[in-house]
Amino acid sequence: MYVYGKNQVVELLKSTPQRVEKVFISRKTHLPLELLRLLETLNTPVIHVDNEKIERMVGNDRHQGVVAVVREMEFSSLAEVVDKTVTKRGILLVCDHIKDPQNLGNIIRSCDALGATGVVIPAMKAAGFTEAVIKASAGAVFNIHICVVENLASFLREIKKRDIWVYVLERGGKCIYDAVYNFPMALVVGSEDEGVGEGIKKTSDEIVSIPMVGKINSLNAASSAAIALSWILYIKGADNGEKVFHS
Amino acid sequence: MYVYGKNQVVELLKSTPQRVEKVFISRKTHLPLELLRLLETLNTPVIHVDNEKIERMVGNDRHQGVVAVVREMEFSSLAEVVDKTVTKRGILLVCDHIKDPQNLGNIIRSCDALGATGVVIPAMKAAGFTEAVIKASAGAVFNIHICVVENLASFLREIKKRDIWVYVLERGGKCIYDAVYNFPMALVVGSEDEGVGEGIKKTSDEIVSIPMVGKINSLNAASSAAIALSWILYIKGADNGEKVFHS
Repeated sequence: MYVYGKNQVVELLKSTPQRVEKVFISRKTHLPLELLRLLETLNTPVIHVDNEKIERMVGNDRHQGVVAVVREMEFSSLAEVVDKTVTKRGILLVCDHIKDPQNLGNIIRSCDALGATGVVIPAMKAAGFTEAVIKASAGAVFNIHICVVENLASFLREIKKRDIWVYVLERGGKCIYDAVYNFPMALVVGSEDEGVGEGIKKTSDEIVSIPMVGKINSLNAASSAAIALSWILYIKGADNGEKVFHS
Repeated sequence: MYVYGKNQVVELLKSTPQRVEKVFISRKTHLPLELLRLLETLNTPVIHVDNEKIERMVGNDRHQGVVAVVREMEFSSLAEVVDKTVTKRGILLVCDHIKDPQNLGNIIRSCDALGATGVVIPAMKAAGFTEAVIKASAGAVFNIHICVVENLASFLREIKKRDIWVYVLERGGKCIYDAVYNFPMALVVGSEDEGVGEGIKKTSDEIVSIPMVGKINSLNAASSAAIALSWILYIKGADNGEKVFHS
């Protein structure tokens, strides 16, 4: 995919630099200082070409002499990510009913920052990988394995055969801070409205819940996922003696 | 403030029912079933009036016979909220540089669900209380005390005189899960880009940080705030033997 125009490429480099593979620049173009600095700081590969070449790539003349080649979202192989979760005794985050792109992007961002092995989303129910998800993830979609499954309940039954423990984050379970976690594990999170599906809850080894002060109030789905992930990964790190960075 | 039109009032009742004080309905209007059910379920006060009265309220004829009277955001008295924090040995969440309305709304929502005593925002730097903040908070702005301060650093110096401990959530501090917390306390959170101001960090009793797996990755500001708040309020609850609901 191409993104072109001076401001558009500056915005892209600022928001999600991981997306930019390389930038083509017309020999005739004077670049704004901000763009030059970004390209240098980010160490982005730059290719200087004739204006005609850029015209042919883009197919119109609104490029202002600057075209970024942008990576597409790529999904990881499910088998590979499951293997990795088993080997690393890691955490797989599984999204159920997360339709809001802002929430999905935020969850992916948290998984990346906190150290989950990967993110699993159901093929039909989840928000598509729109620009909004990529942006909300602050580019994390390019750092972490994301897999798509057709049927979440049967996926969970399959991974249980591989000795991956299944925890569901939902109301009415054990307090997340008091529960005992076994690794490798999958943590299933649902949306605020719908929660996690009944079939999926039945598959789980344990339901865990975030302590709250009232019954009417609820947390945003991305905040809930972040709270549980942060604690579980801390427990896991402390347990394994793994090094963690505080930032 | 008035919100009028059938769909507009339905949307309002669905997203932030706490905002709706009462609904005026023209005697001439047939209401859609969804609106009737919402009014009944939410127990919203309904006043039946002549069409002319509605016309006069709204000042135009695009009301479709339905007008909701909507509560304005009200800020709480700072002195009152500080008193309450001291008495309850509670947690005051202090926002520094949180400009994104989505993040600010989400933080307010977490404070409400997790049980903070109040939220403090600086007068100039924070996002205004736009519709976006109210919506992102899922109406929590109407459940929790929100105060505005002119100068955050001097506010923090003032509350320290009241024996409120000041913790800052920032990079490079003590792991949130290992730190010892004293109550009453204020937790200062910053934005992803700018973090917490230097002057404010100097005022703090301790800097606490969320363990992450890499240096380049970061969490969304609202997710960070939720992670820290959830843990601190759990610790506080456990310590006091207070009852918490798991949901």
